[in-house]
Amino acid sequence: MSAPAISRFPVPEIKDLPDDVRERILTVQEKSGFVPNVFLTLAYRPDEFRAFMAYHDALMDKPGPITKAEREMIVVVTSNANQCQYCVVAHGAILRVRAKNPLIADQIAINYRKADITERQRAMLDFAMKVSGRAYEVDDEDMETLKGHGFSEDDIWDIAAISAFFGMSNRLANVTSMRPNDEFYTMGR
Amino acid sequence: MSAPAISRFPVPEIKDLPDDVRERILTVQEKSGFVPNVFLTLAYRPDEFRAFMAYHDALMDKPGPITKAEREMIVVVTSNANQCQYCVVAHGAILRVRAKNPLIADQIAINYRKADITERQRAMLDFAMKVSGRAYEVDDEDMETLKGHGFSEDDIWDIAAISAFFGMSNRLANVTSMRPNDEFYTMGR
Amino acid sequence: MSAPAISRFPVPEIKDLPDDVRERILTVQEKSGFVPNVFLTLAYRPDEFRAFMAYHDALMDKPGPITKAEREMIVVVTSNANQCQYCVVAHGAILRVRAKNPLIADQIAINYRKADITERQRAMLDFAMKVSGRAYEVDDEDMETLKGHGFSEDDIWDIAAISAFFGMSNRLANVTSMRPNDEFYTMGR
Amino acid sequence: MSAPAISRFPVPEIKDLPDDVRERILTVQEKSGFVPNVFLTLAYRPDEFRAFMAYHDALMDKPGPITKAEREMIVVVTSNANQCQYCVVAHGAILRVRAKNPLIADQIAINYRKADITERQRAMLDFAMKVSGRAYEVDDEDMETLKGHGFSEDDIWDIAAISAFFGMSNRLANVTSMRPNDEFYTMGR
Amino acid sequence: MSAPAISRFPVPEIKDLPDDVRERILTVQEKSGFVPNVFLTLAYRPDEFRAFMAYHDALMDKPGPITKAEREMIVVVTSNANQCQYCVVAHGAILRVRAKNPLIADQIAINYRKADITERQRAMLDFAMKVSGRAYEVDDEDMETLKGHGFSEDDIWDIAAISAFFGMSNRLANVTSMRPNDEFYTMGR
Amino acid sequence: MSAPAISRFPVPEIKDLPDDVRERILTVQEKSGFVPNVFLTLAYRPDEFRAFMAYHDALMDKPGPITKAEREMIVVVTSNANQCQYCVVAHGAILRVRAKNPLIADQIAINYRKADITERQRAMLDFAMKVSGRAYEVDDEDMETLKGHGFSEDDIWDIAAISAFFGMSNRLANVTSMRPNDEFYTMGR
Repeated sequence: MSAPAISRFPVPEIKDLPDDVRERILTVQEKSGFVPNVFLTLAYRPDEFRAFMAYHDALMDKPGPITKAEREMIVVVTSNANQCQYCVVAHGAILRVRAKNPLIADQIAINYRKADITERQRAMLDFAMKVSGRAYEVDDEDMETLKGHGFSEDDIWDIAAISAFFGMSNRLANVTSMRPNDEFYTMGR
Repeated sequence: MSAPAISRFPVPEIKDLPDDVRERILTVQEKSGFVPNVFLTLAYRPDEFRAFMAYHDALMDKPGPITKAEREMIVVVTSNANQCQYCVVAHGAILRVRAKNPLIADQIAINYRKADITERQRAMLDFAMKVSGRAYEVDDEDMETLKGHGFSEDDIWDIAAISAFFGMSNRLANVTSMRPNDEFYTMGR
Repeated sequence: MSAPAISRFPVPEIKDLPDDVRERILTVQEKSGFVPNVFLTLAYRPDEFRAFMAYHDALMDKPGPITKAEREMIVVVTSNANQCQYCVVAHGAILRVRAKNPLIADQIAINYRKADITERQRAMLDFAMKVSGRAYEVDDEDMETLKGHGFSEDDIWDIAAISAFFGMSNRLANVTSMRPNDEFYTMGR
Repeated sequence: MSAPAISRFPVPEIKDLPDDVRERILTVQEKSGFVPNVFLTLAYRPDEFRAFMAYHDALMDKPGPITKAEREMIVVVTSNANQCQYCVVAHGAILRVRAKNPLIADQIAINYRKADITERQRAMLDFAMKVSGRAYEVDDEDMETLKGHGFSEDDIWDIAAISAFFGMSNRLANVTSMRPNDEFYTMGR
Repeated sequence: MSAPAISRFPVPEIKDLPDDVRERILTVQEKSGFVPNVFLTLAYRPDEFRAFMAYHDALMDKPGPITKAEREMIVVVTSNANQCQYCVVAHGAILRVRAKNPLIADQIAINYRKADITERQRAMLDFAMKVSGRAYEVDDEDMETLKGHGFSEDDIWDIAAISAFFGMSNRLANVTSMRPNDEFYTMGR
Repeated sequence: MSAPAISRFPVPEIKDLPDDVRERILTVQEKSGFVPNVFLTLAYRPDEFRAFMAYHDALMDKPGPITKAEREMIVVVTSNANQCQYCVVAHGAILRVRAKNPLIADQIAINYRKADITERQRAMLDFAMKVSGRAYEVDDEDMETLKGHGFSEDDIWDIAAISAFFGMSNRLANVTSMRPNDEFYTMGR
């Protein structure tokens, strides 16, 4: 099996993309040493690409009490529940790097209840999974539980928004059959 | 029960918002005669607000073979499956207006298989529901089925992206307990 | 699409029906100004029609601490869970009229946890949904919870029986593809 | 454990019941040698009792191409799916008697796909289970499948109505904790 | 329908089996008066047969605070959840014999929450069902609950292992379409 | 977090184990360079240990048209569906080694429908997942599908038995909270 497709949809040439989209992709490439396939797949639709990246950055690059590694935990746990190959592999890599922990991504993806995490992180992931699977049942009691673990209202919004945003991303990746880059599999191990 | 809350989270004053966010809200208000609560709820986070609106517009205001009414059908059917009160009520209203059909929104929300829609629209909604509920099973056969109904690759992306985007929106609305404005209930009936 | 079918099964002429069945239908017509399609659909089977209506009246027209509007709430919440178009549209209309509240039916149908209802009504609907979805798990604790909200044993039977009866009705309406009359969509708004 | 309760709700004395209800119960007792607990449990509500029995008789005592044993098969298969102890035990007994087959009830209750039944009976039970579990998906294709097995429109109504009626009965039995009479366990073995 | 197949796979002749396998089968036959079909079905694979029987005996013939009848309760409750005809019929028979109770097997199979069992047995079956259906959620709280009912760590392992082992057995029986011997249906009634 | 527990249950000292159990463990240790925790966890129960290993070897070390790597694919796909951390991590490692493919284990664990596998392997995994999730629906059509991909009756038994056996193993690992050895995470990458 040689050179498998990156996406079920047409993948644009980087050189043909609008300047800002191309710029973003080249920056990532410079930083990572390769272009993660999500960029090439979504660039098929420049307007959606821009909104997706802006949303992503607003949620994932935000400073605050929830660390960047913890934000990636949310992505990994919900993405495996949604059976999203791209998201688990790519964000699993980022999680390993950010947490400086080679085991954490697989542990969380497969069964976060048995991962080496704190009680506070467990509560965070329980809530992220509830938002992902049955947000219609979220109620005041969930807020209280999270506050009991030291999360502020702002933190709770973050957890929910990351779970919801990657729920969208998981669906896009599954529909497009977005392929994880080989590089991700060993990053941070 | 008087003046029920719009959101479980703090709702900013319009006057305190960044200019572009306030501008967008005032424009909607002028056009609709009221400010849909989704704008006030999401304005709590201006960066996410901007990304959300940009994404929304890229998907919903796009010209193309899938009409604006049909795009709203996708929103309504997936939002009831996700038990999202705000989205079914608000987008049900928009659907009635755009389709000039006072019955269509309730029909689709409750059981789209029994709605007054065409075979092509039924195939579109079947796919939107699959993306919403089990995107991990989407495969080439789905593509073929949709193409058999005249949908292009671009159309298929649209259907999937609308389903995925509103899946995110449904979760945000449920977590924030976003309240539909009273005005929506009777629009287009 | 003109004059869509009322039922997937043959619909009898009112004039050909047994006297008591015809009588009941004409009475309803006089009172409502139209014949709700459930009467015409079920009249295909006069004996079942009589039993259905007798059962319905025993449960829904009964005086008692659970008001008629509250009984309709039970019908609306369980019928949307069963995706029954006829029942949500028709009983949603009756609920709006009986509760003198134009918003309540849509709120309850889509996500009753976010509807403008009392704690007692919330407990009633939680139990109705449990009976509808997993009656096999109903236990003494449910009885205690309901009694804690002031419901008597008789009230609990009422809630359960209404949920169970409309579970039957929902299935019949879905199998017959029973069409809600256009009149219901705007009643009480 | 001595003399376990028949019902979670009050059970009336036979002598205190309205004449017609008492009459019905005494007739059954004479015929069966004991009073099935469903009669005593439901007699708590005479009006509902009458409607329930009338509905039951209209569906189960009806002559037609679907035999009485086959009607009981529908009851048994759907009642185990609903985990209704009373209905599986009592109607399992009636099925064994009517089918003159001591194995058939257990086979159908546990996994009807592996029971000693005909292809036509298998199609009948597949449909009964669909009505029980996801009636909202019933469509024209189901009708065609059943007609291909020789079922008329009238037969299809019968199957659906029996499945729906006992879905109600299963829920009532589970909520009331209706206890199967000991006599049923060995009848027809 | 005459002489229905015991298994979907080839069934070896007893005389052709390896000595130890044949010996085991003849011993059972002598004791029971017939050869339970599980022995003939699994003998198709002698090595797996030996491992299966060794595992079975280690779990089911073990002395200890959980009685042999109680071990059979675990088998019956999980096997009906897995719709395994062979296991419910055969182990239901053994349960009736061991518990000297003709009603208990059907009660537990259909809805164990309404069976004539003790609180301790109810906790045991709740846990067995959790292991069967969602072992990934088993946590320290489950251990505490069971210990509160007097179960030791060793007992908890037993319950879990029996549930897990028969989960395997249920799947094998369903795939092979293993047929329960007629003799089991009436044993112990 | 230092030296996390291998199992929720007591873990015996290797020196205290029966000779054959200790022998088996030392052999594995010599071959792998470490003792996989499944051996230490299950050694708490020597009789079950022996049966488990005998069963395992009969299924996994068997020569035949289904390769050893393919057998591991079955383990990995069903173990992630059962959220079994130990089994996915340990057998994922073995799969990578046996398939000489560093990507295949993660691909199959997360969404096997998008893994780099052949049509025949896809059919094998579809069947393994059906056995794992709803074996009660396995029927002749499944046999035909598999035979159409070149699988013999013997092969089909193998697939089913591996899926069933590891279903048991997954439940044991989740109940014991069996911890994957750190070594597995990077093997074969």
